[in-house]
Amino acid sequence: MEVEFLKSLIIPAQTKMAMLIMDGLGGLPLEPGGKTELETACTPHLDALAELSALGLTIPVGPGITPGSGPGHLAIFGYDPIRYEIGRGVLEALGVDFDLGPDDVAARGNFCSIDQDGLITDRRAGRLPTVASQELAKLLQTIRIEGVEFFIRVVREHRFAFVMRAPGLGDALTETDPQKIGVPALPVSALHPDSEKSSQLANQFVQQARRLLADKYPANMILLRGFARYPTLPTYPELFGLRAAAIALHGMYRGVARLAGMQVLPVAGETLADEFTSLEKNWPDFDFFYLHVKKTDTAGEEGDFERKVRVIEEVDALLPRLMALKPDVVIVSGDHSSPAVLKSHSWHPVPTLIYSKYVRADGIAEFGERACGRGNLGTLPAKDIMPIALANAGRIAKLGA
Amino acid sequence: MEVEFLKSLIIPAQTKMAMLIMDGLGGLPLEPGGKTELETACTPHLDALAELSALGLTIPVGPGITPGSGPGHLAIFGYDPIRYEIGRGVLEALGVDFDLGPDDVAARGNFCSIDQDGLITDRRAGRLPTVASQELAKLLQTIRIEGVEFFIRVVREHRFAFVMRAPGLGDALTETDPQKIGVPALPVSALHPDSEKSSQLANQFVQQARRLLADKYPANMILLRGFARYPTLPTYPELFGLRAAAIALHGMYRGVARLAGMQVLPVAGETLADEFTSLEKNWPDFDFFYLHVKKTDTAGEEGDFERKVRVIEEVDALLPRLMALKPDVVIVSGDHSSPAVLKSHSWHPVPTLIYSKYVRADGIAEFGERACGRGNLGTLPAKDIMPIALANAGRIAKLGA
Repeated sequence: MEVEFLKSLIIPAQTKMAMLIMDGLGGLPLEPGGKTELETACTPHLDALAELSALGLTIPVGPGITPGSGPGHLAIFGYDPIRYEIGRGVLEALGVDFDLGPDDVAARGNFCSIDQDGLITDRRAGRLPTVASQELAKLLQTIRIEGVEFFIRVVREHRFAFVMRAPGLGDALTETDPQKIGVPALPVSALHPDSEKSSQLANQFVQQARRLLADKYPANMILLRGFARYPTLPTYPELFGLRAAAIALHGMYRGVARLAGMQVLPVAGETLADEFTSLEKNWPDFDFFYLHVKKTDTAGEEGDFERKVRVIEEVDALLPRLMALKPDVVIVSGDHSSPAVLKSHSWHPVPTLIYSKYVRADGIAEFGERACGRGNLGTLPAKDIMPIALANAGRIAKLGA
Repeated sequence: MEVEFLKSLIIPAQTKMAMLIMDGLGGLPLEPGGKTELETACTPHLDALAELSALGLTIPVGPGITPGSGPGHLAIFGYDPIRYEIGRGVLEALGVDFDLGPDDVAARGNFCSIDQDGLITDRRAGRLPTVASQELAKLLQTIRIEGVEFFIRVVREHRFAFVMRAPGLGDALTETDPQKIGVPALPVSALHPDSEKSSQLANQFVQQARRLLADKYPANMILLRGFARYPTLPTYPELFGLRAAAIALHGMYRGVARLAGMQVLPVAGETLADEFTSLEKNWPDFDFFYLHVKKTDTAGEEGDFERKVRVIEEVDALLPRLMALKPDVVIVSGDHSSPAVLKSHSWHPVPTLIYSKYVRADGIAEFGERACGRGNLGTLPAKDIMPIALANAGRIAKLGA
C-alpha cells in the first residue's frame, strides 16, 4: 500500500500517538535454545503492555535484508525503504545535525595522508584527533567558489560531513576514495549530465583543499564519497495530518525524523530519562512522538549481550512515565535487529507491539521475539505498522460506501 | 522484492547451503482433525532439525493458486513464478533431458488417430506402447525443412517432446489439438507477427508428418500444444554468486535447475540413497545444492497416504547424511502440496524450515504443517526463502548506512 493511498483516507482526530524505538532491538540467543537479549531482560512494564497489545514481528526492508539505520527508520516511519533512499552523504550530514535543504548535495569526507607524489599512504590520516580535524575544517571552510556554498562539519576523528549548496546540483557522482593506498585520489566524475556542475565544483574544492592542507601532514589531503542529494519525503504533516515530534540523542536519528517532517525537540541532558522528560514536557503540543533509544544498538554492535539486556531493562523502568501520559496509541519496536552474537545489524524480524484501546490484544503477557512471533499481527513489513497505528488512533476514514 | 535488488547486495562467502525439496510435501489429514502425511510420519531427524530452525509455511505462487512443478520450483528457487513463466512445451522437453537453447521453441506432442476424412477418432492413438512411439519418432526425425532443425523425443506412450530450432522463432502460437474427437486437427496460427515463421514451420512439419504416418494407424497423425520458448532466467551464479548444483532423478527437475544455472550432477542409481551419495561426493565442489525427492508427490498424486508417509520417513532416515556434511544453511521444503486425499497438486501452503547457526530458532521440535504454521517465518511467499537463506549464509550486504 503506497503512502499516497493512505493519505487520501486520513481524517483528523484528537488522539495522541507514541512510537518508542529501541535501535537494533531484535536479537538472538547466545546458545541454541537460549533466550534473546529482549527475552532475557526483566521487563515487567513491557510485558504488562504486551498483554493489552497486538504483537508481531516486523521486516524492515525485505526478507533476508539487513538494513542500515536509514532504511530501518524509513520503514518503521511508514515509508517504503526501497522507494525512498537516503544516501550515505546525507546520513553523515544529518548525523552532525546539519540542516540539509533541497539545494544540497552531501558527501562523507575523510582527511587522509598522501606522499610527495600524491599517492595515498593512509586513508584515515592516522585517525587524527577530533580537535585537530576541527582546526583543519575551519581552514577548508575558507574556500570560496563563485555561485556555491560549502559546509564542512567534523563528525569524529578524521571524518567530516561535506555539503555543497547551489540550485540544480545533481548527485550522480563517482567517489574520490580509491579504497586502497599507493594510488592517487580519484577525480569526481558525473555519471549523468545533470551532475556535471556538481562534479566540477567538487573537483575545484578538492584541488583548493589539497593546496591549503599541503603542510598539514598527516592530514594533507581529503577523500569524498557517498555523494547524495537531500531526499524529499512526503512529510508526516502532509501525509497524516500529524503534528509530529522527535526525541533522539543522536544527530542521524534527529535528521531522519526531520526528513519525515517531525519537529526535533530539545533534550536537556544525555540520558534516557532526559528523553522521557522531554516527552512529558512537550506532550500537550504534538499528536505524534518518536522517541529513539540508541544504546540497545550500540551494545548489540559491540557484542555486549548483558549490556543490551540492561539497556532494555532501563527502558522498561521508564515506560510508566510514557503510559502515565495516557497515550491513545503506543508502538514499541526497533528499526532493525542487532544481535550481540553477530556484533552487527541483522536481517532478523523485529519484535513489535501496538497498544490502543481498540487493538485486538493477543493477551500474551510477554514482549520478546518468540512471543511476538505468536502475535496476531504476524510477520509483516515494518511500513505497515504506521497505517495500523493510525487506524487505532481514529485517523483513517472508511474506504468506499 | 525483485531478484535484481537482491543481486545488488550479494557478497561472497565461504558458506555451504543445501535445499532439500520433497515434491508435493504439504498434505491434508484423511479425516477432519486428523494428521497430515508429514505429521503422521515418524521423523526424528527432521523434528530435531526443526527445533534448531525457523519454521514457516510457504505460498508458492499466490493464495489459492495450485502450482505445477515449474512455477513451484521457480518460487522456491527465489524467482517470481508469475514474472518468469516456463511453458508446457519447455517442461516436456526438459523432462526428457533435452538440452534446450535460446533458439528453440518446444511443444508437447501426441500421436493420435484420424479417420479417412481426417477427423480425430482417438487423441492418444490408443496410448500406443512407448517402444512403438520410438520407431515413429525416428520416422518423424527424417523430416527436413530448409533453415530449421526439428527434434522429436518420446516421453512415454503416445507423448513426445517436439522442438523447432532456428534463430528468431516466436512462440505465440495456437495449438493443433482441438481437445475433442470427431473434428480435424487445427492448423497452427500465429498470435503475434513475431511468430509467423514458427507457425509456417510447425504447419509444414505437421503436413509432412501426416504423410509419413499415413499407414501407421492408430498413430497416423500428431497433435501439438503448449508451444513455448526457452525462458531466460537470471542464473544462480549471476544473481547470487553461487556455484550451484542439482541432484534429481527426473529430467524435468534437472531441467528447471539447469535453467537456474545449476550444474546437474550425475546420480549413480535410482534411489534416494543414491542421490545422497551424489551429494556427499560433490560436497567440496559447490556452494549450493538442490536435492529433489520425487516420490512424495507421486504417492500424493496417486492418493496413497501411507506410501507418502513412508517416503517422508525414508528421507528422514537419510537426513543425517546431509547434516554430517555440516552445511551452514539447510532449507527443507516442497515445491507445492500434494495431499493424498486430493490425489493432485494443491494450493495449500508448504511446510518449510530454515536451519543455520544464526537463524532465530522457534524451538518447536516438530516438522509438520501445524508446527510450521506456528513458526516465526509466518506464512510467506516461497520466493522469500532464498533471500533469508542467503542472509543466514552471510551472503547479503547491509543496505544503506
